[in-house]
Formats: sequence, C-alpha cells, structure tokens
Amino acid sequence: MRTSVPLRHANRILNHGPVVLVTSASGGRDNLMPAAWVMPLDFEPALVAAVIAAGTFTRELVDASGELGLSVPPASFLDAVHAAGQVTGREVDKWARFGLARAPASRIAAPLVDGCLAWLECRVVERSLAERHDLFVCEVLSAWADDRAFHGGEWHFDDPEGRTFHNVVGNRYFLTGEARIVKED
Amino acid sequence: MRTSVPLRHANRILNHGPVVLVTSASGGRDNLMPAAWVMPLDFEPALVAAVIAAGTFTRELVDASGELGLSVPPASFLDAVHAAGQVTGREVDKWARFGLARAPASRIAAPLVDGCLAWLECRVVERSLAERHDLFVCEVLSAWADDRAFHGGEWHFDDPEGRTFHNVVGNRYFLTGEARIVKED
Repeated sequence: MRTSVPLRHANRILNHGPVVLVTSASGGRDNLMPAAWVMPLDFEPALVAAVIAAGTFTRELVDASGELGLSVPPASFLDAVHAAGQVTGREVDKWARFGLARAPASRIAAPLVDGCLAWLECRVVERSLAERHDLFVCEVLSAWADDRAFHGGEWHFDDPEGRTFHNVVGNRYFLTGEARIVKED
Repeated sequence: MRTSVPLRHANRILNHGPVVLVTSASGGRDNLMPAAWVMPLDFEPALVAAVIAAGTFTRELVDASGELGLSVPPASFLDAVHAAGQVTGREVDKWARFGLARAPASRIAAPLVDGCLAWLECRVVERSLAERHDLFVCEVLSAWADDRAFHGGEWHFDDPEGRTFHNVVGNRYFLTGEARIVKED
C-alpha cells in the first residue's frame, strides 16, 4: 500500500544510490527518464541534487515547470527502465511503449510511476549550476513508499525482484545486495 | 595491483552509489571521513559532486587546500569506515584508531586510503553552493583501481568481502548485490 513517508526520512529513500525514474510535465505533455545521478543533499528541509542533461525532453519539461517526480523502480522493472533511457519522449510515448502506468502525485503536476517502490515529489529551488553542470537542487515536497518495501524509515527487501538497483554503465547494473548492520559500542 | 583508470571511466567508479572515504590534508594535518552523498557529475572532464558538511574537520581541510581524495572501501572495511564517521579528526587520529593506512596520491597532497578498491584524486572547481548547501563540484585529476576489483572500465566483485557497500541510515548498510546485464535489441 502506498503510504506517506515523513520528509525527514526522504533522504533514506535515495541514500544507497538506486536508479530512479524522473517524471516531468508541462503544457499537457509529460515524460519519464531513468537517472543515476541523483542524491540526497539535506535532511530538513529535505533536499536532493539531480543531474538532468541539457537537450533532453525531461530537461525541457523541468525547466518549464520547475518540478519533477522521482520514482524508485523495482528490479522487475529493469528492462523497461533501461529501455526508457534509450529513446526520447519527444518521439515516443514511453509509458505506452514500455508498459508503465501513471500514478497521481499530490503536490506536483507531473505523474509518478505506478508500481514503483517509493516516490518523491520535488520542486526545483536552485538552478544556478543548471546551465553549466546540469545540476538542480530540489526540495522534496512529499514522499511516499510501498509499505512492503519501505517502512519504519528503512528499506525491507524481502522479494528479490522487489529490490532497488544501481547502474554501472550502459546496460550493466547491480541489484541492491544484502543488508549489513554495524554493531556500535 | 593499483592501476590507472582512464579519466573518462572515472564516473563508473561512483555510478552505483557506494560509500566513499573522503581524504583531505592541509598545513601538515590530514583526515578521512566516510561519505554517502557523492556522485558523478560529468564525463569529460570527469567531475563529481560531493557534500562536505560545514563544521567538519574534513571541510576545514578541503576549504584550505581545494583538494580531496575519494577512496572506495571494500565490505571488509565496513566496521572501520562506520566507526570513522562517529568521531572527529580534530580529536582523534582516525588512521591509527581504526587501523587504516595512508597510500600516496599522485596529483594531490592528501593521502588515499590503502587497501581500498578504487581511488579518485580531485580538485574543487566550483564552490558557489558550498556555503548554502555544502556542495562541492570537483574535477577528477587522476583515477586508480585495484585491478582485481575494477578493470576494463567495470567492477568485478568476485570476493564477497571485496564488494562495495551503500549506506541507508546510521549503522545500516547494503552490500552491492549481483550484477544484471540488460539484453539490448
């Protein structure tokens, strides 16, 4: 079940570096794009840093709207997520092509990606490095998670295909591996 | 064996979001600090974005020197890496306390951490978001890897305790899991 995540825990959704799907919308059009270069930037207010390459349709929509969604996909979505990075939303309806469905967001106009493990709704708050480095600082307005995968402020990967994954390069990925808890004195 | 990594492949060392050890030096003192908020930012020149919290000894040394090292530790270092994040280098010689040894860098004054899997030597090139967001944009001057763990531009995790790891929150981590290669049409 999709449940609200306290904003102070939003960083924990991205802290381990999973691939995300960036969603965006403007002027009646929307898009999704996989991204690896997204990380937390602060706790309260919850901020994230995201690299959105110039020239992409996503960049056009984010620049126009000042908003973006981040959906964290499960390993079972890996083929679709990878394929969605090989075409442009200017020419292809990626949702239809790759069998992905929109889920409504609460605070932004862009949709989220249905069936993902967690979601962040974000507003761009700083774009002074956007022209030079494609870097956007975004405030997390709302955070959600599938409570089977993330609850109590932590990930719980019981289903092997319900784990997050990480990109290395091109079509090569790592699934998120086993948990290890360090014993503290 | 420590071997040189082409700078165009430096992003692949951090792309999957592993925990790194940030090293720094200035005025005859040096330090190391674990960090999760570090990601690639560009390919050529190879850039990384790193969050270095204000008030830390590492921040003081990075601000003074304009340089930092990034060492990617193996799972076998997890206890030491975690513990190194619980104390400050102003009061503790973390190298001695946690049994970590310095390895010489080639382009920066700061040492690297011996026994790690890969290393990036970096120079700060943009700090306009440092005061507000603790964010540093750094150019990778030199990249290295233990060729058992990273060669041919890719990670190869044959040894379970020689894998990278990711932080979730506090003392909770994930090891990097199994590789998955997406078949492309």
